Amino acid sequence: MDKVNIKGLAKELNLAISTVSRALRDSYEISPETKHRVVTLAKKLNYQPNPYATSLRNQKSRTIGVVIPEIANNFFSLAIKGIQEVAQQKGYHVLIYLTHEDYKKEVSIASHLAYGRVDGILVSISSETNDIAHLEELNNNKIPIVFFDRISEKINTTKVTTDDYKSGYSGTEHLIQKGCKKISFLSISEHLSIGVKRMQGYIDALKDNNIPVEERLILKASNDNEENYKNISKLLKSPGRPDGIFASVEKLAISTYHVCAALGLSIPGDVKVLGFSNLETASLLNPSLTTITQPAFEIGKEAATILFEGLSKKIVHPGNKHIIVHSELIERASTR
Amino acid sequence: MDKVNIKGLAKELNLAISTVSRALRDSYEISPETKHRVVTLAKKLNYQPNPYATSLRNQKSRTIGVVIPEIANNFFSLAIKGIQEVAQQKGYHVLIYLTHEDYKKEVSIASHLAYGRVDGILVSISSETNDIAHLEELNNNKIPIVFFDRISEKINTTKVTTDDYKSGYSGTEHLIQKGCKKISFLSISEHLSIGVKRMQGYIDALKDNNIPVEERLILKASNDNEENYKNISKLLKSPGRPDGIFASVEKLAISTYHVCAALGLSIPGDVKVLGFSNLETASLLNPSLTTITQPAFEIGKEAATILFEGLSKKIVHPGNKHIIVHSELIERASTR
Repeated sequence: MDKVNIKGLAKELNLAISTVSRALRDSYEISPETKHRVVTLAKKLNYQPNPYATSLRNQKSRTIGVVIPEIANNFFSLAIKGIQEVAQQKGYHVLIYLTHEDYKKEVSIASHLAYGRVDGILVSISSETNDIAHLEELNNNKIPIVFFDRISEKINTTKVTTDDYKSGYSGTEHLIQKGCKKISFLSISEHLSIGVKRMQGYIDALKDNNIPVEERLILKASNDNEENYKNISKLLKSPGRPDGIFASVEKLAISTYHVCAALGLSIPGDVKVLGFSNLETASLLNPSLTTITQPAFEIGKEAATILFEGLSKKIVHPGNKHIIVHSELIERASTR
Repeated sequence: MDKVNIKGLAKELNLAISTVSRALRDSYEISPETKHRVVTLAKKLNYQPNPYATSLRNQKSRTIGVVIPEIANNFFSLAIKGIQEVAQQKGYHVLIYLTHEDYKKEVSIASHLAYGRVDGILVSISSETNDIAHLEELNNNKIPIVFFDRISEKINTTKVTTDDYKSGYSGTEHLIQKGCKKISFLSISEHLSIGVKRMQGYIDALKDNNIPVEERLILKASNDNEENYKNISKLLKSPGRPDGIFASVEKLAISTYHVCAALGLSIPGDVKVLGFSNLETASLLNPSLTTITQPAFEIGKEAATILFEGLSKKIVHPGNKHIIVHSELIERASTR
C-alpha cells in the first residue's frame, strides 16, 4: 500500500486538504466533530506526518549533528556517550557524521548540514582542516556550532578541550623524570590547535630541562596507518634512536607498540612510551601503557550542554569562550 | 544577514516565485535570459536550496541511515568504514544512529527515520530487541532495509553476517583441543540470532566431544559492564571454575582479562581465553588474545552494496537472502 498522506485522507473524508491539515494540527478553526473524523481515519490508516513538511513548518528538526574525524578511537566513542546523554534528556536525536580525517568530506558534510537538517552542530575538525570557511558559513546561516577537542581558534564560538599545553608539558616532564634524554614527539597535525599546543608543551618542557629540541625526533603523523608504522620504524632503527616516545594521539601509541614488537625492542627497557589515550585496554597491554587520559565523556557532555543552552535561548552564537576540562596522567609499566 | 530564499530572489528580480524556482531547476519553460539573471543573482547572494524542500520535490535525501548498538567496538567502526567506502562512491551521505543497546531508543530512531529522512537503512539491532515491528513498519513504508551482523530472522529482507554457528563450533573445538574440560560461554543475548547461533555451535561442539553442557557455565551478558565484571568474577571464583572461556563479544573478553588480573589468575595457565573480536590491540595484550576475527569491513561493504543495488533499481524489498562472509580463528598466547 502507498503511504497515506493528507491528500489521501482529504479525498477519503470528502474534505478540503487544508481542512485536514488544520484538523491534524488541532487548529481552533476546525470543529471538534471534523477533528474527530480526521484523527480517527488518520489513526486507522496509520497516517504519519512527513518530517520534511513538518520541519519546513516548524523550522525545528529536533536533531543535532556531531561531526568527528573517526570512531575507531575511544576518545570519540566516549565523547559521543556524553553528548547522547544530554541529547536524550532534551528529546533530541543525534546524527553522527564521520569525516575520516578528510577535509573535502568535511566540507561536503557541512553543505549537507546547511539549511535546516539539524538545529545545532558539535564539531571536532579533521587533521587536514586549516580553512574553516565551510563551518563559518554554517554558523552565519544561523546554525549554532560548538567545537570540542579538535577546535579551530579562527571561529568566534565556544570551544571545549582538555588542557592540551599543560598535558604536553607534564607528559614530557614525566619521561624526563624517568631518565629519558632523547624524547620523540609523535605529532597529530600541524594544522590542529590541539596538536600545536601539545607540541609546544613538549618543546617548553625540554627547554626548561636544558634538553635540546631536535627536529629529527619530531614526527608528523599521516592519516595512513601503514605510513605511520614505517616512519616510527625508521625512527627507532636510526642511529641515536629515542629512549622515550610521546604519542600525541592513541593510534600512534598503538603503532609504536607494534613497531617495538617487530624490532624486538623492550618497552620500557629500550624505549619508554607514553600516549594520549582513552584505550580501554591500556592497563592490559604488554606492558601496560602510561596514558594521559582525557575526560572524554565530560568533554562531550559539556559541549552538548552549552549547545542546548544556546538552542533553548535561541542564541546562534554562544560566545567566544574556551572551556577546559583537565586530563590525568596515569602511570603504568611502559614508563617505569 | 537572513538566509536568501526563492521569495527574496523573486522580489529582488521582480519575477514570480514560480519563475525563479523553475529557472533554478533549469526548466525549458524559462528563457535563457531570465535563467541567466536568476542564476547570477543566486550566486551573488550565495543562495542555496533548502534540502527539505528539495527532498519533498525529489523524494530523495541522498543519505542512508546506519543504526548500530554501539561504537566502542572495533567490529562496528570497521563495518562503518566499509559502508562509507561504498556510499562515497555513490555520492551518498551516511548518518549514524546509536541505540546504545536500548530497544526503546531503537524504536524512537525508527520513527525518526520514517517518511523520507533517508533513502535506505542498514541495521544491526540492539541486544534487547525482540519485537521488530518498528523496522517492519519502516520497510512497509517503502524504505529498503538491509541487516548486518545482528540480524532478525523475522523480517523478509537481505541479511549479511559471518558464519556464526560455525565460528561458535570451531572456537569451542579449539579450546577442547588445547585441553579445556570446563568451557564457559559468555553469551551476548538470548534474543539475538547471532547469539543463539554462536551458542548452538558451542553446545554442539561440546556434545560431539562428549563434554557435558553445564548451565552454570553459560553466562548471559548485561549491557552494564560492571555487572558483567561481577558475574565473570563470581564465575571464576566458584568451585569447579572454568578452565576455558569463550567470549562471544569483544567487551566480554576484555572484562575477562580485567577479572583475571584482579584475581591473580594466569591466562592461559589457569584459564584459556578466546573471543570474537576485531580489537586492534589483540596481539599487544598480556597475553595476546586468541580471536575469532570477523571480516567487519567486508560485511559493511557487502551490506551497503546490496542496499545501493536495490536503491538504483528502486527495489524496496531486496529479497530474503542471507549472505555469509567467513571469519578467521587467529591463535595467540591466550589459548596456548
